[in-house]
Amino acid sequence: MRENSGEAKSSAIAAFRRVVGDRWVIDEPAALAPYECDALFHLSELPMAVVLPADEEEACQVLRYCAQHHIAVTPRGAGTSLSGGATPVTGSVVLGLNRLRSISVLQDAGQAVVGPGVRNVVVSEQAQAHGLFFAPDPSSQSACTIGGNVAENAGGVHCVKYGLTVNNVLGVRMVNGSGQVLELGGASLDSPGFDFLSLITGSEGLLGLITEARLRLLPLPSKVRVLLAFFSTPRDTCDAVTSIIAAGIVPAGLEVMDNASLIAADSYSPALRLRTDAGGALLCELDGQPAEIESWTVQIQEIFKRHSLLELRQADDQHERLELWSARKNILPALLRTARDVYVADCVVPRRLLGEVLDRINEMANDASIEVVQSFHAGDGNLHSVLRYDSRNEGEEERAMELADRIMALALEAGGSISGEHGIGTEKLHGMCWQFGVDELDVFAKIRELFDPHSILNPGKAIPTLHRCAELGGMHIHEGQMPHPDLPRF
Amino acid sequence: MRENSGEAKSSAIAAFRRVVGDRWVIDEPAALAPYECDALFHLSELPMAVVLPADEEEACQVLRYCAQHHIAVTPRGAGTSLSGGATPVTGSVVLGLNRLRSISVLQDAGQAVVGPGVRNVVVSEQAQAHGLFFAPDPSSQSACTIGGNVAENAGGVHCVKYGLTVNNVLGVRMVNGSGQVLELGGASLDSPGFDFLSLITGSEGLLGLITEARLRLLPLPSKVRVLLAFFSTPRDTCDAVTSIIAAGIVPAGLEVMDNASLIAADSYSPALRLRTDAGGALLCELDGQPAEIESWTVQIQEIFKRHSLLELRQADDQHERLELWSARKNILPALLRTARDVYVADCVVPRRLLGEVLDRINEMANDASIEVVQSFHAGDGNLHSVLRYDSRNEGEEERAMELADRIMALALEAGGSISGEHGIGTEKLHGMCWQFGVDELDVFAKIRELFDPHSILNPGKAIPTLHRCAELGGMHIHEGQMPHPDLPRF
Repeated sequence: MRENSGEAKSSAIAAFRRVVGDRWVIDEPAALAPYECDALFHLSELPMAVVLPADEEEACQVLRYCAQHHIAVTPRGAGTSLSGGATPVTGSVVLGLNRLRSISVLQDAGQAVVGPGVRNVVVSEQAQAHGLFFAPDPSSQSACTIGGNVAENAGGVHCVKYGLTVNNVLGVRMVNGSGQVLELGGASLDSPGFDFLSLITGSEGLLGLITEARLRLLPLPSKVRVLLAFFSTPRDTCDAVTSIIAAGIVPAGLEVMDNASLIAADSYSPALRLRTDAGGALLCELDGQPAEIESWTVQIQEIFKRHSLLELRQADDQHERLELWSARKNILPALLRTARDVYVADCVVPRRLLGEVLDRINEMANDASIEVVQSFHAGDGNLHSVLRYDSRNEGEEERAMELADRIMALALEAGGSISGEHGIGTEKLHGMCWQFGVDELDVFAKIRELFDPHSILNPGKAIPTLHRCAELGGMHIHEGQMPHPDLPRF
Repeated sequence: MRENSGEAKSSAIAAFRRVVGDRWVIDEPAALAPYECDALFHLSELPMAVVLPADEEEACQVLRYCAQHHIAVTPRGAGTSLSGGATPVTGSVVLGLNRLRSISVLQDAGQAVVGPGVRNVVVSEQAQAHGLFFAPDPSSQSACTIGGNVAENAGGVHCVKYGLTVNNVLGVRMVNGSGQVLELGGASLDSPGFDFLSLITGSEGLLGLITEARLRLLPLPSKVRVLLAFFSTPRDTCDAVTSIIAAGIVPAGLEVMDNASLIAADSYSPALRLRTDAGGALLCELDGQPAEIESWTVQIQEIFKRHSLLELRQADDQHERLELWSARKNILPALLRTARDVYVADCVVPRRLLGEVLDRINEMANDASIEVVQSFHAGDGNLHSVLRYDSRNEGEEERAMELADRIMALALEAGGSISGEHGIGTEKLHGMCWQFGVDELDVFAKIRELFDPHSILNPGKAIPTLHRCAELGGMHIHEGQMPHPDLPRF
């Protein structure tokens, strides 16, 4: 339904109402407005309708109707995507899975079977009563839903130890673009056949809707300790990360904040008395057995001393731990308060190159006269460069977006990747043409066609066509011409 | 090349010689004999030739020739597959990757980049000099190669803590069935696009040849301890496993041996003075920080006491640890020495059901008058039921194979899987029809076609066609009629 003829639209909406009931089809323009974008805040035109099925069977029926009538479908959970993954296209149907909210915790198995509309934080709340937790904890965890976590392969501060969503999902039920139900993975460790559970995880809604997920829950650690260390230089801060990992210590979280982050967080909450004279700070969370934590702490103190440590704080008590964490968690709110516009460039690089890449980004930011603040998941090599700019100033937004592109290209040059945990969505389609060659993109397109032969699922997201790459002027960064020939070779 | 006309065969062999050199094409029947089967020992007819390329480029050229001329290709490493994964079909070309043996250890990154022909044990030997190790350690590790480990998603005794091969591979280079080179994953944590690195891992040679793998290496633990505990009953032995995991302890290995295993191992090596009066034994390896191991040991001793512990042995010294491990490692050699025929039924079940499943298998074995010995990776729920029989006795092999089928079906009923770590190969094709429904098998077939449009890669393995399922009388176990209606519901 490329053009939405009035009649076809009415028939479609009537059909959806028959499936899910009148109450669960939204088509009034005012009521549609909240669905016109997600957390990337790129406005799109309004969808034709929002349909909210009660269960998998209703979702299948809606999908089958859309497949027959070539109506694009934008799957949606809480709409917290930072890369435009849940942004509808004109005339599409937003298929919201928020009503699928069943949850059952299997204590003995250390698993939970949940509907896609269950919020991330609810899983851990329910698991806690059984002495368990769900590891992926994206910063949107109080709002974002499990369906979206699976579709985007969500991360969080604890992935350095516990992995991404793909490492914590044991099975899913899904509906593909033809309305077929597929069951992948399951309750036991391994499953034969081609492993397409991982293929679905992180597929950004292009291969199907998640209608149920079996999640791995982990025992709550018996003890947690947070260390907050301030160092003279950013390079020392990053080198301390490499040294901790090289020593065989696996912290539950390992977050770097640069001087600009510390200044921002300090202005937001001076009571924390952050060292704004430090070149960088490292927040290190340890969890596990008390004896193990003591022994790690001794080793980490030795490492910090070798890397120009200025000051070390330690918290075991939950209240004090949250206080140290707030140094990290306040940075984005602080930046949002003081900057007109903020853009988070999410990418990932090999951990040992963090210091070098950070220096290069700072140089590039200087050249572009764009202020960059670095506060990121260092344990994963997952950089979050926060670009501050004012779009009212002539040319400033263009310079910021150009810088974001250069950061993506730099990550690729370093052997990294254009996206760490925020996904591709509409935001980074052009970067996909840099990261992947023609053969890989061709396989992506064929996999997509296989799961969605009518091309209705989340069009325009995540996987560019070769044609689109040509339009975007993209070229595989290690085969063709570099988009930024002045970037360093690592 | 369904029929190998003499002329077509000569042309093919001449073409292969031009690509890899005369020396690296084997076509003398006597020289071909070692390639006619793998460790499943199912004889097949001889392949047309064995071709041993020197590098990826030669492998591509051979594959492209085979694609053009519709010649089946059986990829092969060391031929240690237990499920027939490297068994050639008549007229096929065995493409051996043994000459691709480059290896480079990147100490800072904790990675190794290796050719597919590198043996598993060589990776850990080389890594050791850098204080690192490669976690997957299948029992064939001194012979099996990394290409085969990736293709079969190999496991080993340490997967309970460190995962299967899929959890320890960061990237691969591969050649698909059209001779295209694809690069998947890489040096950093996450990669956008559809995750087909996991799709390739465990694809049993059906989607492509692995030409290079980037492996995750882990720091060698500072201390290792092995505990060997004897219990009164098999159920107590299994329940001790569940209790250890429920306590949040993650051992590096957790192996159960039943009474028959202990008797077999004792006959092989009486010097170990194993408790042959025990209903079962549990071998538990702990690794990590010394303080952590001490604290775990105390907790585990408490758990063992609650589960009818008869005797506990402990070893920290490497020599003594290997001695305790030999109790486990001697079981299969002991059984092979005393039984005329041995078949290992490999399957996986949810860990908490291990005790119940074991009891059921023993009942079924009694009914079938087949002796079964249980010695397995309990930490993963990965059962290895060793069936002992004498194929010279009328009907005994049939009864043994019928029992193996019932064990597979039982694993499915328990919410498990027909294969734990040995793969499907030719051995368990019919089980695939039980485990998966028509829709899943259809997606498998389409994925296969996408990577191998000429259907030349490892035909007859791993993924049955729907037609083949009908021939095998297979039916999805939760949709259709149960193959064994008397099996319990869990």
